Amino acid sequence: MSEGSLHRPLPVDAVPGWDIETDVAVIGFGASGACAALEAARGGARVTLFEMASGSGGASALSGGEIYIGGGTDVQRAAGFDDSIEALATYLKLAGGPDADVAKCDLYAAQSLDHFEWLKAQGVPYKGTFVPGKIIEPATDDTLIWSGSEEAWPYSEAAAPAPRGHVIQWEGWGGGRKLVDILERNVREAGVDVRTDARVLSLIADGARVAGLVVRIDNRLVHVRAGAVVICTGGFCMNTDMLRRYAPGALKLTDPIGENDNGSGILMGMSAGGDAIHMDEFFTTCPWIMPESLVKGIFVNSRGQRFINEDCYHGRVSRTMIDQPGDRVWLLVDNAIFARPIDLARIDIASVGETWEEVERDLGLPEDTLSATVRTFNRYAAEGHDPVCRKAAKWLKVLDEPPYAALELGFPGSYFSFFTLGGLSTAPSGEVLDRAGVPVSGLFAAGRATSGLPRSGHGYSSGMSLADCTFFGRKAGQAAAVAARAVVREEIVAA
Amino acid sequence: MSEGSLHRPLPVDAVPGWDIETDVAVIGFGASGACAALEAARGGARVTLFEMASGSGGASALSGGEIYIGGGTDVQRAAGFDDSIEALATYLKLAGGPDADVAKCDLYAAQSLDHFEWLKAQGVPYKGTFVPGKIIEPATDDTLIWSGSEEAWPYSEAAAPAPRGHVIQWEGWGGGRKLVDILERNVREAGVDVRTDARVLSLIADGARVAGLVVRIDNRLVHVRAGAVVICTGGFCMNTDMLRRYAPGALKLTDPIGENDNGSGILMGMSAGGDAIHMDEFFTTCPWIMPESLVKGIFVNSRGQRFINEDCYHGRVSRTMIDQPGDRVWLLVDNAIFARPIDLARIDIASVGETWEEVERDLGLPEDTLSATVRTFNRYAAEGHDPVCRKAAKWLKVLDEPPYAALELGFPGSYFSFFTLGGLSTAPSGEVLDRAGVPVSGLFAAGRATSGLPRSGHGYSSGMSLADCTFFGRKAGQAAAVAARAVVREEIVAA
Repeated sequence: MSEGSLHRPLPVDAVPGWDIETDVAVIGFGASGACAALEAARGGARVTLFEMASGSGGASALSGGEIYIGGGTDVQRAAGFDDSIEALATYLKLAGGPDADVAKCDLYAAQSLDHFEWLKAQGVPYKGTFVPGKIIEPATDDTLIWSGSEEAWPYSEAAAPAPRGHVIQWEGWGGGRKLVDILERNVREAGVDVRTDARVLSLIADGARVAGLVVRIDNRLVHVRAGAVVICTGGFCMNTDMLRRYAPGALKLTDPIGENDNGSGILMGMSAGGDAIHMDEFFTTCPWIMPESLVKGIFVNSRGQRFINEDCYHGRVSRTMIDQPGDRVWLLVDNAIFARPIDLARIDIASVGETWEEVERDLGLPEDTLSATVRTFNRYAAEGHDPVCRKAAKWLKVLDEPPYAALELGFPGSYFSFFTLGGLSTAPSGEVLDRAGVPVSGLFAAGRATSGLPRSGHGYSSGMSLADCTFFGRKAGQAAAVAARAVVREEIVAA
Repeated sequence: MSEGSLHRPLPVDAVPGWDIETDVAVIGFGASGACAALEAARGGARVTLFEMASGSGGASALSGGEIYIGGGTDVQRAAGFDDSIEALATYLKLAGGPDADVAKCDLYAAQSLDHFEWLKAQGVPYKGTFVPGKIIEPATDDTLIWSGSEEAWPYSEAAAPAPRGHVIQWEGWGGGRKLVDILERNVREAGVDVRTDARVLSLIADGARVAGLVVRIDNRLVHVRAGAVVICTGGFCMNTDMLRRYAPGALKLTDPIGENDNGSGILMGMSAGGDAIHMDEFFTTCPWIMPESLVKGIFVNSRGQRFINEDCYHGRVSRTMIDQPGDRVWLLVDNAIFARPIDLARIDIASVGETWEEVERDLGLPEDTLSATVRTFNRYAAEGHDPVCRKAAKWLKVLDEPPYAALELGFPGSYFSFFTLGGLSTAPSGEVLDRAGVPVSGLFAAGRATSGLPRSGHGYSSGMSLADCTFFGRKAGQAAAVAARAVVREEIVAA
């Protein structure tokens, strides 16, 4: 056990010698790690960044590069939207579920505009243009989209709606790679010592203080002395054993969004006494809203019942699908709104009929279940409202133009991407908290290794995770630089 | 920090001196702790049991003293039921959810008959008589009841049904107190050193091995040296802070079944490296099935939709209520089956009407929601089946005799008792496992401080927790005695 393990820090007196000495050691080169390293370096710290892959990226590089930003950005204003810090904070807290991190929501809302300016100052380009409608990621290089449930019940009643998904200028999907590339350029210019193909094996502990890392580089054990460690290793969507123990609800999903999201950082953080919270929470989505006319359809479960207002965020709809009895749901559409879902979604046409009763029979549902659901929906849709699930009027359409179709989403079967939301408990400063709520000395974390802004799978909105990664990654880097300096001062006093 | 804390063991070299030396230290004097202490003592160990209250009890003493036992007991056979080890094992695994503890389910099923004999040998009386029907606890002193979802879909299709709730002979509810009293008598006769009003503050660690406890007795710190420690402290239903971080779904429930179920043992186990799993899971029930005719009613949520076959276990129905949108559900009954629910349940009559449409309007539901649900239910009930929720034929009744009533269950509002099911990960031996699945040396646990047989709130059946507490409490005590002897041997060799 001379290298320690993910489950047990190596005691400092078992370290044979220091191969690297640094102020701040950052683990993971996704968006969180990049932002943490950058701000720590700019805060005057010597920073070493360890990444197990051969280059930067992480799950961030697999994303759309979309960041949840609000409070009245220039882009929002140019598009005619009045957003406020209050509305943003209220939305974030509602989205965070029954244990929303109020302190982080308030801080992020208050500093969201500054954070947007900071991103631009790093060279992240924004075209500044708004695209209306229901969009997963812009197919164009535009900036602003509706990326959550802002206009949908119950969010619309709690907080004044505004679009807040700010997307990096990039033609088509996948701008996350470009975002990380830009952050990497800044990281390197700031003088961060980047070590790739470097797998962190364990923390090193000096009593109750985290004092460094054991890293495997070129098949050699490297002992790193650090004044502070920042864990930015992502979640555990690719660790089936952890999913089984902590988030078994996600086991039926087959498409993790991750690169090396094996939960190693969460385990190391816990090994030093860190608390891990809300480990059962996960985000999932199936891209069922393309083309947009499908949003006018209604979802029913295996009992023929509706279960959500279909106009809320596609991930909220998808997450609620996973809660339904049976392992499939159907999207009901008529001929007027029918369109073939995108291939990626793996959505099949399960049934086509001239009447809803025919579709109901064809799906093997009891009589007067699905058809009764459609009848009630249609009757109110004709009046312009949806008292059952509260879908907004603009998405209501009487489904009365045959032929009718039921599009089937299965889990497993359809494409449900997912990642985990549970992780280390942290203060807004990024300090990892133990189970008594006390910071673990020398240890910081950000991004999906933590339970942060996006804390509830049912409340997630696109861009929340990258907002959390970039903003609280920065905070963690800043605080780690300060903490590392304090360690150096203590050592000088002690010497 | 000379006493350590729930969050950090006291290092053995910080112990000023040993006030008590024992082989096995058991924490908690509910059913788990009693069984662990008893078996450890009978295994030849010196045993000291620490209980923070002034006497035995714990949550076990607040229970009905009902234990989930099967495989063909004399009582089952006398009542004409053919049960098998296979059927019991299959039921337990289905009830355990997607991460059921297969090893524990199989072991318990194989040894369930022996365990019943053991309980009788301790002096636990069983009258040996069966009471048919839907019962929460017998009002009489009879033994055997249907205590789960055995006869209900989907369990009935997976495992041959048999009643398995074996209740201690005791007139009326609350036999759990008598059960613990009998176990206590055995514990004292076995020579266990029982210390009450003794609050355990922390574990003591000798490197990676758990070596004792710090206990506060008479406002004095007592340092206990132990070859093995068994944590039997119960769950965390009375710790709001832990509920918030790990099981926020239970925050809306107001009636914990607990005495001192503050999660302290789970925290101590984690402080020594133990893994805590499925921390989001909880049992809850509202006693809505009394009188039994109410089971012929149907539940609808705030959208007027059914959500479960009402003939399954009352706790499974209740747990599913908590998942529904809105914070209330209604039980719909007609005049033929109406009966006033027991006062304890805090269930109100929300509406009475001559037609289901009138009730629907009166509750403020959209037209053709609740009434359509009843119409579809009635149509099939008349044919003797329920294709929507699969309630068994014997509980089906066409709800067509006015006046009609909607009984309202609110959360909060109605009486929903609850306790937590997440806790330390343990082997069938009771060894506490770390996050790598390796036993923490010297540390054992049983009962609701662990995630055991009853692992899923949706699958819980009455008697499962006491089955787990008594059976795996025994296993933990036996294994702890063996482990403590090994420590003594090592010390002799080392000396």
